[in-house]
Amino acid sequence: MIVALKQGITQDDSDSFIASLESRGLTVHISKGENQTVLGLVGDTSSLDPEAIGAHHLVAKVLRVQEPYKRANRLFHPTDTRINCGSAKIGGGFFGVMAGPCSVESPEQIVAVAKAVKAAGAAFLRGGIFKPRTSPYSFQGMGCEGINLLVAAKKETGLPVVSELMEIHQLEVFDEIDIIQVGARNMQNFNLLKELGRCSKPILLKRGLASTVTELLMAAEYIMAGGNEQVILCERGIRTFESFARNTLDIAAVPWLKQKTHLPVIVDPSHATGISSLVPAAAKAAVAAGADGLIIEVHNDPENALCDGEQSLTPGGFSDLMVTLKKYAALEGKTM
Amino acid sequence: MIVALKQGITQDDSDSFIASLESRGLTVHISKGENQTVLGLVGDTSSLDPEAIGAHHLVAKVLRVQEPYKRANRLFHPTDTRINCGSAKIGGGFFGVMAGPCSVESPEQIVAVAKAVKAAGAAFLRGGIFKPRTSPYSFQGMGCEGINLLVAAKKETGLPVVSELMEIHQLEVFDEIDIIQVGARNMQNFNLLKELGRCSKPILLKRGLASTVTELLMAAEYIMAGGNEQVILCERGIRTFESFARNTLDIAAVPWLKQKTHLPVIVDPSHATGISSLVPAAAKAAVAAGADGLIIEVHNDPENALCDGEQSLTPGGFSDLMVTLKKYAALEGKTM
Amino acid sequence: MIVALKQGITQDDSDSFIASLESRGLTVHISKGENQTVLGLVGDTSSLDPEAIGAHHLVAKVLRVQEPYKRANRLFHPTDTRINCGSAKIGGGFFGVMAGPCSVESPEQIVAVAKAVKAAGAAFLRGGIFKPRTSPYSFQGMGCEGINLLVAAKKETGLPVVSELMEIHQLEVFDEIDIIQVGARNMQNFNLLKELGRCSKPILLKRGLASTVTELLMAAEYIMAGGNEQVILCERGIRTFESFARNTLDIAAVPWLKQKTHLPVIVDPSHATGISSLVPAAAKAAVAAGADGLIIEVHNDPENALCDGEQSLTPGGFSDLMVTLKKYAALEGKTM
Amino acid sequence: MIVALKQGITQDDSDSFIASLESRGLTVHISKGENQTVLGLVGDTSSLDPEAIGAHHLVAKVLRVQEPYKRANRLFHPTDTRINCGSAKIGGGFFGVMAGPCSVESPEQIVAVAKAVKAAGAAFLRGGIFKPRTSPYSFQGMGCEGINLLVAAKKETGLPVVSELMEIHQLEVFDEIDIIQVGARNMQNFNLLKELGRCSKPILLKRGLASTVTELLMAAEYIMAGGNEQVILCERGIRTFESFARNTLDIAAVPWLKQKTHLPVIVDPSHATGISSLVPAAAKAAVAAGADGLIIEVHNDPENALCDGEQSLTPGGFSDLMVTLKKYAALEGKTM
Repeated sequence: MIVALKQGITQDDSDSFIASLESRGLTVHISKGENQTVLGLVGDTSSLDPEAIGAHHLVAKVLRVQEPYKRANRLFHPTDTRINCGSAKIGGGFFGVMAGPCSVESPEQIVAVAKAVKAAGAAFLRGGIFKPRTSPYSFQGMGCEGINLLVAAKKETGLPVVSELMEIHQLEVFDEIDIIQVGARNMQNFNLLKELGRCSKPILLKRGLASTVTELLMAAEYIMAGGNEQVILCERGIRTFESFARNTLDIAAVPWLKQKTHLPVIVDPSHATGISSLVPAAAKAAVAAGADGLIIEVHNDPENALCDGEQSLTPGGFSDLMVTLKKYAALEGKTM
Repeated sequence: MIVALKQGITQDDSDSFIASLESRGLTVHISKGENQTVLGLVGDTSSLDPEAIGAHHLVAKVLRVQEPYKRANRLFHPTDTRINCGSAKIGGGFFGVMAGPCSVESPEQIVAVAKAVKAAGAAFLRGGIFKPRTSPYSFQGMGCEGINLLVAAKKETGLPVVSELMEIHQLEVFDEIDIIQVGARNMQNFNLLKELGRCSKPILLKRGLASTVTELLMAAEYIMAGGNEQVILCERGIRTFESFARNTLDIAAVPWLKQKTHLPVIVDPSHATGISSLVPAAAKAAVAAGADGLIIEVHNDPENALCDGEQSLTPGGFSDLMVTLKKYAALEGKTM
Repeated sequence: MIVALKQGITQDDSDSFIASLESRGLTVHISKGENQTVLGLVGDTSSLDPEAIGAHHLVAKVLRVQEPYKRANRLFHPTDTRINCGSAKIGGGFFGVMAGPCSVESPEQIVAVAKAVKAAGAAFLRGGIFKPRTSPYSFQGMGCEGINLLVAAKKETGLPVVSELMEIHQLEVFDEIDIIQVGARNMQNFNLLKELGRCSKPILLKRGLASTVTELLMAAEYIMAGGNEQVILCERGIRTFESFARNTLDIAAVPWLKQKTHLPVIVDPSHATGISSLVPAAAKAAVAAGADGLIIEVHNDPENALCDGEQSLTPGGFSDLMVTLKKYAALEGKTM
Repeated sequence: MIVALKQGITQDDSDSFIASLESRGLTVHISKGENQTVLGLVGDTSSLDPEAIGAHHLVAKVLRVQEPYKRANRLFHPTDTRINCGSAKIGGGFFGVMAGPCSVESPEQIVAVAKAVKAAGAAFLRGGIFKPRTSPYSFQGMGCEGINLLVAAKKETGLPVVSELMEIHQLEVFDEIDIIQVGARNMQNFNLLKELGRCSKPILLKRGLASTVTELLMAAEYIMAGGNEQVILCERGIRTFESFARNTLDIAAVPWLKQKTHLPVIVDPSHATGISSLVPAAAKAAVAAGADGLIIEVHNDPENALCDGEQSLTPGGFSDLMVTLKKYAALEGKTM
């Protein structure tokens, strides 16, 4: 971390500030210019808060040179992390597609969709049972009852299942769920993240609507600091001034994340756009940008979906898309 | 809700779509233009999801005319809601200031700050014990131990206390806390909101970094739908492209909220700006814009604060500001 | 356009408002609900300003159903527009790459880069001579002298050239420039747009940093309304809260624009990311998302570039990228 | 400027990079840490582009310590700049209100509004004659004919007038205009700014929709670098994800700008909110935040305004607001 002191401060002030930094176990390199002194802090600065340093009345500016994440940092773990769920794989050269309805609605629906997406080549079944909804008057998901339907579909098809957890105590009913999803609104629910750090299942961590990619990595760091290193990152669109689509897919976040971290990165083109006719283009762009997988909403009857029908593909549309995606994944040298 | 159908659809298609809407208990008014048919849906549309309607292949556009919130809506409750905590009041003509440190750090610190802010005219003591931090390696708050210090400061000064709850089971230790704060990152933690709807204490609900004011009202609606109508809304800055300050204080949200809802609206100039030298101007602007109160960070030693020192006022700075704020509140006809 | 009137207004008020709308040549369809009257305005509403209508004290909400653009609208011109510049083509199945330095710096530089990008398969040479710079103290481009160098490079290689115009009177020296670029900061310089509408050259119109895609189409409409229908749209990143890259590439804007307009759509991955190591992924994503072309910064010596070196590819890097892009364009069925 | 080099680079590489910096006339202070070398660049770095430095392959990060603006910088001109227009003043303790219609529409309209705003205490008359409109099919202003009407109203009332210039050659007809407004969309029309730097009239420079406050100061610097130091800055709302209002009024920009620059800062609550019922609260907040003035839209018949009626106050509403604003200005110790 580099700290530029204000101009015109006394030697005494500067000395005592430097001493206080050294007392935290840091080595301080001092560079005196004509008008300004600059300090280089060497040592483990990951627990130093740049804003706290910046609060000191002697400090003009602070620059963090090291990234604040360690376990998620590719610098310290150059090899790609690969997530394995039975025969399904994501990361390290494997491209995995998760598909299914926004919400589990009935036994017929979930089994039919599961069979369709498996036939098309999806490696995972997704389905929501607890649904975060903006309005308390909207459908909130089937709850625990939905779990059984999801598990039945898993048994019927052999596909591992992904579902969203909304609070810690729901872990009790997630025994048969293979990958636990943390939704965008919970990306900085730090208590939940800490708890998932003690769990032995892969976590699908969605980027918050207004979270930076660095904050996404810090959220992964919360989980990894607890001992669970199986984290899949998901870019799902951010909130901007533009409103033609539900969110703005931040496609460049994919190659940036792949440079910074060894964790697998997938894209959710359904939530990122919110419009089914834009999903195929967004999905193809994700593969081309270097993503390790996709999570796509597929519904057998989008117009009567209880949730997010506007952005769901039909099984036929999904199947067509998968044919194309395989060609793109091949160009990227990935196994799908 | 108004639904514009696509051009060139058949009479049969249109009839069956209208029938499906009527089957949900709605009355449908039909307006046929030369090229386009427009439907007006009459009845309780608050549980209708405009996006779900928009997913139908016959629909071109959807316009919600009624606001989606009911209990928070000033239309149905024209009189201002006033929150009472002993002798302290917020809303309905009363201007209340909450002040204190970001984090409770020691018995001496919290009691000293409590006395100082009381002397300056604050009506409530604020202090964090569970701290949401971006990095798992940063100070996370004192936890339960901090509660006792906060309660001791409350007894010493008589000030009611406000503190942030990060997850449901922490409610157990909040017995002596007078107002429960829901942080910006938890504004859409819907399970938490539902639980607080069953609680009998006032809730201070902070706006999410990327939440619209309508979403803030819908979050309040979650709490109110559970039976707890004592909700204080807090504008605390939103995330935009501009980065000179920590967030962008959305000052116009104050008069907009005051028009739309009967709930009290306060402003957090400390988090909204993140820079202590901007706090006084932001605080005065909030009073002038019609806010019912403020929540301000005050620390006896900002440079050594364990959290958010950069944005904290000193007790002296706070005391000076309060003298000015009283003049502004008087101009607005509010009791402070 | 659909206009929802406020509740509880008198018959007289409503009648006189309707009469005022009809006096503008519109047919008004009236739908009376129990609580609310909704008007459907039929006719040419493209000159109606929804905000002006919304200003009326009787009006609750306004919904535009028709798009406000006509000449750019695919509804009225279903066939793709193709831009031809000698043998180079963009749109209508042709994928065209424009490449070259941010700034023309010397005869050697521009000729060397021109030869390199031609050899790699670029169809157009780009080079800036007038540079919009945030600081008055930064290099502002070579100005008119640069034109001659650009034209010399065009003669040497046969590549048509693209360059940015910053104000109307510069048109005088643009005789030999084949495509005139309107920069992001000038997207709503309406006087400039009108003037370019009277010109017979293709216009490359870049999206403003904070412009919606609808505003981009309205800017194209300004040019087209003047008689010049050869407009190429360019997505080049928008400004959001996220700052890891220079801008946020709005990749979903590509398929959205392709649905709404017949004009060709290209992507600028260099300005969209601002980081050369992210350019290849962004460029591939653009092809996969359905773009008709790319504009890429290539510099023979990025580290000593007078402008934007951070985002420039070397000739070697560009050449490698083009090999890959051809495979992607082939998958999309485009000629490159 | 501080430059952190990458880890593990050779002595030779580092030496030659330092030599290249010194060849630009800078003194370079070198601080070697265990893992990293940090350079402090001393001298006039205002013409150094941090992005260009960052493009060098040896550079990890760049931190600008000095502000990039000089003439606008309060550090070098501690005293407030005051703009005088006859007896009307803005800045340096004087609070000035500019009021009038968005668009000049007729002799009766502009004279009537001018008289009304003067009676209420406005110091300047504003009125648009060239209007930047999103759609080419909307009313574009009266053009040169409008100038005469504006000048007639000036003669009738004695109020100095403010009007927006859209391109350089319009300067010819601005002889009698007292303050030239540069609109938000032209804030970075650098050729226009340079031309206005050679002009001897005060310039009202509006912040761009997506411009940072630093970019606003750099735009002022363009004008000042040409010799015209009479620049009034105007905060008029920025574009964010929030859409209840036309823009998001960035109220904290006011105290931030007042700290950084000696130039007067005013606020446009009409464009910032776009809703007349929010204008009074926004205007009061601006005074409380430390603004030196306001520019407010007033129209004698907002519902039939040709432009921006939704956000205009009536003369009566404006007059009431001015009574209140005087009390706020008095609290701030300003003469109005």
